[in-house]
Parts: sequence; structure tokens; C-alpha cells
Amino acid sequence: MTSPRFTPLMAALPSTVPFVAAEAMERMAGRPFRARIGANESVFGPSPKAIAAMREAAANEAWLYGDPENHDLKIALAAAAGVRPENIVVGEGIDGLLGLTVRLFVDPGTPVVTSLGGYPTFDYHVAGHGGRFVRVPYLGDREDHVGLLDAAIRENAPLIYLSNPNNPMASWSLGADIEPTLARVPEGSLLILDQAYGEFAPADAFPRVDVDDPRVIRFRTFSKAHGMAGMRIAYGIAAPEIARAYDKIRNHFGVNRVAQAGALASIADTDWIAHVVASVNHAKARIAAIAAANGLVALPSATNFVAVDCGRDGAFAKAVLDGLVARGLFVRKPGVAPMDRCIRISAGTDADMDLLAEMLPQALADARR
Amino acid sequence: MTSPRFTPLMAALPSTVPFVAAEAMERMAGRPFRARIGANESVFGPSPKAIAAMREAAANEAWLYGDPENHDLKIALAAAAGVRPENIVVGEGIDGLLGLTVRLFVDPGTPVVTSLGGYPTFDYHVAGHGGRFVRVPYLGDREDHVGLLDAAIRENAPLIYLSNPNNPMASWSLGADIEPTLARVPEGSLLILDQAYGEFAPADAFPRVDVDDPRVIRFRTFSKAHGMAGMRIAYGIAAPEIARAYDKIRNHFGVNRVAQAGALASIADTDWIAHVVASVNHAKARIAAIAAANGLVALPSATNFVAVDCGRDGAFAKAVLDGLVARGLFVRKPGVAPMDRCIRISAGTDADMDLLAEMLPQALADARR
Repeated sequence: MTSPRFTPLMAALPSTVPFVAAEAMERMAGRPFRARIGANESVFGPSPKAIAAMREAAANEAWLYGDPENHDLKIALAAAAGVRPENIVVGEGIDGLLGLTVRLFVDPGTPVVTSLGGYPTFDYHVAGHGGRFVRVPYLGDREDHVGLLDAAIRENAPLIYLSNPNNPMASWSLGADIEPTLARVPEGSLLILDQAYGEFAPADAFPRVDVDDPRVIRFRTFSKAHGMAGMRIAYGIAAPEIARAYDKIRNHFGVNRVAQAGALASIADTDWIAHVVASVNHAKARIAAIAAANGLVALPSATNFVAVDCGRDGAFAKAVLDGLVARGLFVRKPGVAPMDRCIRISAGTDADMDLLAEMLPQALADARR
Repeated sequence: MTSPRFTPLMAALPSTVPFVAAEAMERMAGRPFRARIGANESVFGPSPKAIAAMREAAANEAWLYGDPENHDLKIALAAAAGVRPENIVVGEGIDGLLGLTVRLFVDPGTPVVTSLGGYPTFDYHVAGHGGRFVRVPYLGDREDHVGLLDAAIRENAPLIYLSNPNNPMASWSLGADIEPTLARVPEGSLLILDQAYGEFAPADAFPRVDVDDPRVIRFRTFSKAHGMAGMRIAYGIAAPEIARAYDKIRNHFGVNRVAQAGALASIADTDWIAHVVASVNHAKARIAAIAAANGLVALPSATNFVAVDCGRDGAFAKAVLDGLVARGLFVRKPGVAPMDRCIRISAGTDADMDLLAEMLPQALADARR
């Protein structure tokens, strides 16, 4: 048999996965993790009102295709964001929206600007469309938004990715500092401002954005503060001509109906989000205290996770990580120097944090041997 | 402002939707439908065991990303189909899998063979990747699988689409008749055999397929007999090299966790599927009787819907359809002649069928005026 006649781009791509799943690691280890604090999921779960809405929808509406226009959800999201429904695009998680965004702007060879060590799933989509990577190093532990724009202008790139707050470092830039960067985005280009962790960020981390400026799209998600990572629902806020462009290629019936119901209920439960943020802050303080008790430094965090500086190089941090994983703690770490000196720990329950306090000294001792 | 610098293909595509949703029609009409029997959803809903599993997952697991490897689900699906887990690819509905399949094989200008009047969402994906349509007319009310293969060989097309049973006509070909067609698929090409309605088909509608033949992928779904259209989960059965290729480009965490749980429970509840099939057969018999009572002919059906021949041309059938919609019945119809002489009615509850019996004579009288 001859090989399947994939397109040249597809034939050249590897079969891969941007992140090895916790479940895959559990299967390899032959036992479940004792704490799942590695994927920045919300251990505090969804709003009870969202759970009730999802349970109701699962029982009575699972047989119905979801509304492909996401009509009611767009109205609620627009009202909450102070924009118009035509400024909203709803998709299957930010991952799904990133894939569509890349497809809209990137042909083989198109330059795409992102950070060296930035979000792997964005890189996966860029590679999947044959984009040419223009990678800008972090500045310290933060994405270098000025450098990203310098590169975009130099390379005439139609697409730029910036996360604020940042994953994997939990760092952030002030909105007032980002605003001049946004003003520099060339006409016709689009800057993706990934605000997946926005609910955990200080108010001054948000740049003012003219919602009708077609040069910026902001992504928000129900996977983090809303505790609905498994439901696959997120949204973008953009100029109508950008939001409408997704209708060219999106899987119109792709957002599941139970997620739509849960999201609608969760938007209305602002008390729950405040509770989650407070719980996350409590957990982050515990991570910082545990790190300090072990002579390590927890970096400041505007997200639901903490990057803990292990104080040496990437190999040492990897050894610490491996020690935690071997002891049943699912955590992850940045892959690119110098950020790779850190491990990345998601906010957990008190029980999760107790396990971290117990295991970190052991993992460190092993790593130092 | 200059226009966004979309790729040339994207700039040329229209913003669209393959199907106007029932919800959109309800909003236009200002009132809900009285019967939703237009999208071939299963009014009989999911298995009670699937509902229980989904309610449990919605409450306790919505905060967790789903397993991107769909490990347990693949094992269960493989066991049920008598194949190996590496023969299975799981995706966000057949619509999602079709989009990925087109992306694997189609560059701008690549010939793609499908039926004139075939599945609009497949056409949407082909257009979205710039494929060149090679459309083969139906033979009577059935897809012309021999003609499709003639065209594929003539045009050297790497991708061919065939549904069996067929949507929108509910017709089918015998598996034994399709087998010689499958044998003619050129090496390196892929024939998509869409079996979304397979649970409703007679046993002799299934061609024997060598599961390790890389020239055929069969799609099955949880949206129809399993009653989980809103959950967005389906799967393909193919040679490992084909199934694995989706890992190049799929949204690895894209299948939602509640859907995974529901699907796993539904696979095990074969009694429920038997109940659904019996209920569908009852409803189809009622549709046929109602059609006959109005002097119309219900075509034979191997699906969960019936194409009713309105006896005149497409304009007349459209008038009948409009009359039903105006009276609160959500139904649809084929768009291409000569199939467009029909309206397409999904199996409904007895209450749905009572409404059809009441409204069809009125809609017909209006259409004849």
C-alpha cells in the first residue's frame, strides 16, 4: 500500500500532544495521583448554580444540539463585559479558538510572533498550519510585549500572541504598560491577548482596549476561575468583523449544550467567582509559605498557580518535579531556560497543600543528592 | 483601517452556517416550536445510565480536563466494534471529525468527491479548505457509490464522501453492493463512510471492511441513536495510520469530560439502544401512515427520520414545509432536485406525531392553494 495522500504539510507534521495528560501519567505509573495540581484546573469546582444547570441540561437537553449561535450566552457575556453581542465569539475552549484564529491568519510560511517558552498549544496550532515561528525571549520572567511588537513590525507578521497574566510564570504586566504596545499593532494584524487567568489578576493588569479595534482579540475562559475545564467553553471579545470571521470556519454546532447552560449560570454567580479567587489566594499563600520553608522562592502570581523558583538550573528543577510526581503529586514546569528553573504548582485544596508540604522536602532532598 | 490580513482563502470565504438552527427560527418567529422533529435528534433521549453518568460527571468532574487520549472510551468502543483501540479516533461529533479529515487531505484546489445534495456540513469543511468539488448526482434517491468512485478515479481525488444510510433521504445501499466500490478506492485515497444512522439500518446495509485498510474510515456518533447530540462526541474506525493522523491536528483536550462519561455508559446500555430503535420504528410507521392518509408517499427509511415525497416539485414541497414550520413544527427538507420534492421528518414522540397528523393536511391545503 502507498501512504495516505495527506497534504504535504500534514504529511510532514508529527502525531503529538501538546501536554501529556494527568490520566496518561497515572496509567504509566499504575496508580492515581494523590493531588492533581498540575494543569491549573480549579479544584474548587464550578458554581453550585452552574452544577445545577449542567445536571438539569444533562438530564433533559443532552439530546438537543446546542444553539449554534450561542445567542443567550453572547447576550450575557456582552452584558458582563460591557460590550455588544456582536463583539463575542464563543468556542470550544481557548485552545479551540486559538486553532481557528491561526487558521484565519496563517498559511504555510506566514510569520507568527510569540514568546519563546510561551503557550505550547498555540505553538501546536501554528505548526499545524505551517506558520513560521518568530520567537521572542521572555524579559526576566515576563513576556516581552515590547519585543513581541518589535518583531511583529520587523517581520510584517499578521498574528501575535501575548498572554497576560502569563502561563507558565504567573507573571503579568500592567495594563497601562501594555496599552502603548497595543497601539503599535500594525493595521491588518491581530494581537491575541490571552486573558485565561484574568479573574485572578489585579485590576491594573487590564489594558483599556477599544472593542471595535480589529487589531486585538481578548480571550477569556470558563476553564479556570469558573471551574469548567472539562466542559470546553471559552470566548473572545473583538471587533465585529473579527468575531464574525470565525463563522467562516468554526464547527457551528461544536459547543456542547451542557456547557452553554453551565456557562450561562456561572456568569450570573459572581459570588462564586469571588469565593474561588479567595480560595486560590489562600492556596497561593500556602504554596509561598511551603516554598519559603524549603528555602525556595515563590514568584508573584496573578493566576491560579504559582511558579516556584527551585534556585538552580532546569535539570535541578526537573529532578524536583520528578520527585513530586513520583510521590503522587501532579505538577508541571516550564520547559525553556531560564524559566525552567521553576516548577509550576496549581492552587489546591488544603489537603493538596498538606501533601505538598509533606513531599516537597523529600523531593528536594532527592534532587540534591 | 485596512482589512484584517486573513489568508486569501479565508478572506474569500463567507461567514455562514450550514444549518439554520431551530433556536434561530424560534427567535425569528417569536415563539418556540411545538415539535422539534427537524434535526434528526433523538426525542427519546440518552440512556438513563448515560444521564446518570453525565449528571455525576457534571457535578464532580466538570473542573477536570477530559482525558485527551480518550483511553477508556477507545477500549470500550474497540471492544464493541470488534477492533483494536488504535483503530479508533474520538472527536467532537462527526462534524468535527469531518473538518479534521478534510484538513488532512485537502489543500486549495484538491479535488473532493461527494454527492450533489449530500451532507452540507461536509461541503462546508471542503469549502473551508479550498477543495475543488466533484459532485455526483444521486441515482434515484440513493447516493451513487459507483458513480462516486468513477469520479474519484477520473479526478484522482484523495478524499471521497459517502453516507450509508443516507441523509437527507433515509435511503441505503446493501453492504454487499458497496464492497466492490470500496475495493476500487485508489491506494492513498480515503473514502469516508458516514454511518451516523447505523443503529437504525438493517444488518445487510453494512459492508465488510478490513479495519486495517487505510482507504476507508467509518464514522459513528452518539448524536443519533444514543441521544446525545448536544454532547458533541463521535468516533471513527480506521487503520491505525489513519486514526493516528488526527493526533497531528486535533484539539487534544477538545472532547468534553461529561460527554466521555456519558458515552462510556451509553455503550454499555445496549437495551436502551434497542428501545430507541423500536421507538423510532414506531414513529416512522406513524409518519408513513400520516403521509398515506394525506395522499403522500413516505420513502423507505434506514435512519431515524423519513423523507416524505410531496408528489410535486421542490417549490411545492417548500410550501408544505413552510406551512408546517408556520404551525410550529420544526422540520427540514432536501435542497437539491429531484430529492427536494420531499420533506424530511425526524422520528418524534406520539405527541409530536399527533401534531404532524393535525398540521399536515392544513399545510398541504395551503400549499395547494
